[in-house]
Amino acid sequence: MEEKNRDITQQPFTSLFIIKIGGNIIDNPSALEAFLKDFSAIKGAKILIHGGGKIATKIGEKLGIRSNYIDGRRITDDETIDLVTMVYGGLVNKKIVAQLQALGTNAIGLTGADANIIPAQKRPVKTIDYGWVGDVDSSKFNVQSLLSFIGHGVAPVFAPLTHDTHGHILNTNADTIASSLAVALSAHYKVRLIYCFEKKGVLEDVTNDDTVIRKLDKALYTQLKQEQKLFEGILPKIDNAFNAIDAGVHQVLIGDARDLIKNTTDNNEGTLIY
Amino acid sequence: MEEKNRDITQQPFTSLFIIKIGGNIIDNPSALEAFLKDFSAIKGAKILIHGGGKIATKIGEKLGIRSNYIDGRRITDDETIDLVTMVYGGLVNKKIVAQLQALGTNAIGLTGADANIIPAQKRPVKTIDYGWVGDVDSSKFNVQSLLSFIGHGVAPVFAPLTHDTHGHILNTNADTIASSLAVALSAHYKVRLIYCFEKKGVLEDVTNDDTVIRKLDKALYTQLKQEQKLFEGILPKIDNAFNAIDAGVHQVLIGDARDLIKNTTDNNEGTLIY
Repeated sequence: MEEKNRDITQQPFTSLFIIKIGGNIIDNPSALEAFLKDFSAIKGAKILIHGGGKIATKIGEKLGIRSNYIDGRRITDDETIDLVTMVYGGLVNKKIVAQLQALGTNAIGLTGADANIIPAQKRPVKTIDYGWVGDVDSSKFNVQSLLSFIGHGVAPVFAPLTHDTHGHILNTNADTIASSLAVALSAHYKVRLIYCFEKKGVLEDVTNDDTVIRKLDKALYTQLKQEQKLFEGILPKIDNAFNAIDAGVHQVLIGDARDLIKNTTDNNEGTLIY
Repeated sequence: MEEKNRDITQQPFTSLFIIKIGGNIIDNPSALEAFLKDFSAIKGAKILIHGGGKIATKIGEKLGIRSNYIDGRRITDDETIDLVTMVYGGLVNKKIVAQLQALGTNAIGLTGADANIIPAQKRPVKTIDYGWVGDVDSSKFNVQSLLSFIGHGVAPVFAPLTHDTHGHILNTNADTIASSLAVALSAHYKVRLIYCFEKKGVLEDVTNDDTVIRKLDKALYTQLKQEQKLFEGILPKIDNAFNAIDAGVHQVLIGDARDLIKNTTDNNEGTLIY
């Protein structure tokens, strides 16, 4: 509890929810509709970051654009960056914005190129050339426009795209954009970063969905890791969450999109990392 | 000259350039690059509106989406609205934004759904159901966000898309968006609305490109119409320009994109309608 009290004392600001959704919601129209209703019901400052989903792959197949992999890592070539710019930045993003407007949320759809909010660096070629992929550094974000939107009750909705400041759009991981935005805005807001994923939260027993760990601080995490109780696949997500907290983010929550409303309160269903 | 003096007296505001480009620029990468350089060189407040171009048709053909016409009018069906949302709102819009950022213009890419700037009405079905097409009314525009962008030196870049406020994106004519934005912002700025088209301007002799009419007021227009000197195809454009001026827009300029810089000055190459 010491860690949590320290954060509350140092950040007596207004709350801001930064919420990330992935393909499991975007590809499912009824899940997306339900999620957007809940997102609209959240009072106060909020930002949505969406991933891409399978729709880009489907449209890419129809256009004859082959997914290109080297050593199992997807490469963003010229055709692919145009594809994701269309699908993530246009189709997915603008449909979400229009739906949110209908629900009474004054949303604005953005990529990192817009208002230069997220300048990124094209990933340097070492052993693999990933193509048009951007790495971000939250200290370089231009958050003034974002602060103005949020201050005027406008909800920014980000596609997972940034730009290299030399004229090219870059493909950037949505989880990374979410955590970097959370860090960049922590100087101005008490940020709860919420990752919506397939499970209700981090499970103490991965075979039993009723074993969600509701509150997880570093001490408990260290203990559970030593006991080797946690599902290995979740460890990077938790490590990233603690990195965000170390960089100033108030809290990180990992949970099911269907629990969004509860997960914005202290009575959370998912795992609150603090 | 009376008309012009009246306008200057009534609108002692900062200048704002609202510039519309169409397919002849969007479909030509070197023309687009040259245009964006000139657009970036314009000092002060500016807004860009782009049309769609042939790229949507090309991508639509690859996706097996057939253009649907009734009585020669294109219909925006479910597949087509998704196509133009992707291509205009994503691919074209975000590439322009990234290129402008590289040129030092802090652009933000928008549709009319974003920040609810352009709520529109799905065109009522009379004899033809145009599908997802939006008609706009400049008195309903929400210009506060736009004024904030412009005031902070950010250049809005609009795709020709609006929304019905019930969750759907609508296809809307780019010329109409440009003139409606010009009218909506005339209460705040001294607006010069610039339409870039294929000719240097309105020609007194349509067979001779050296006969551009540099200044056109209503008296001269009436006289030229009576003399049946003007190319008939240009008359609706001029009528729309005078409608915009009657609704408060300071000046409308019709000219070649390559003359953009000169066309933002009093030493215009194109036709200045006032």
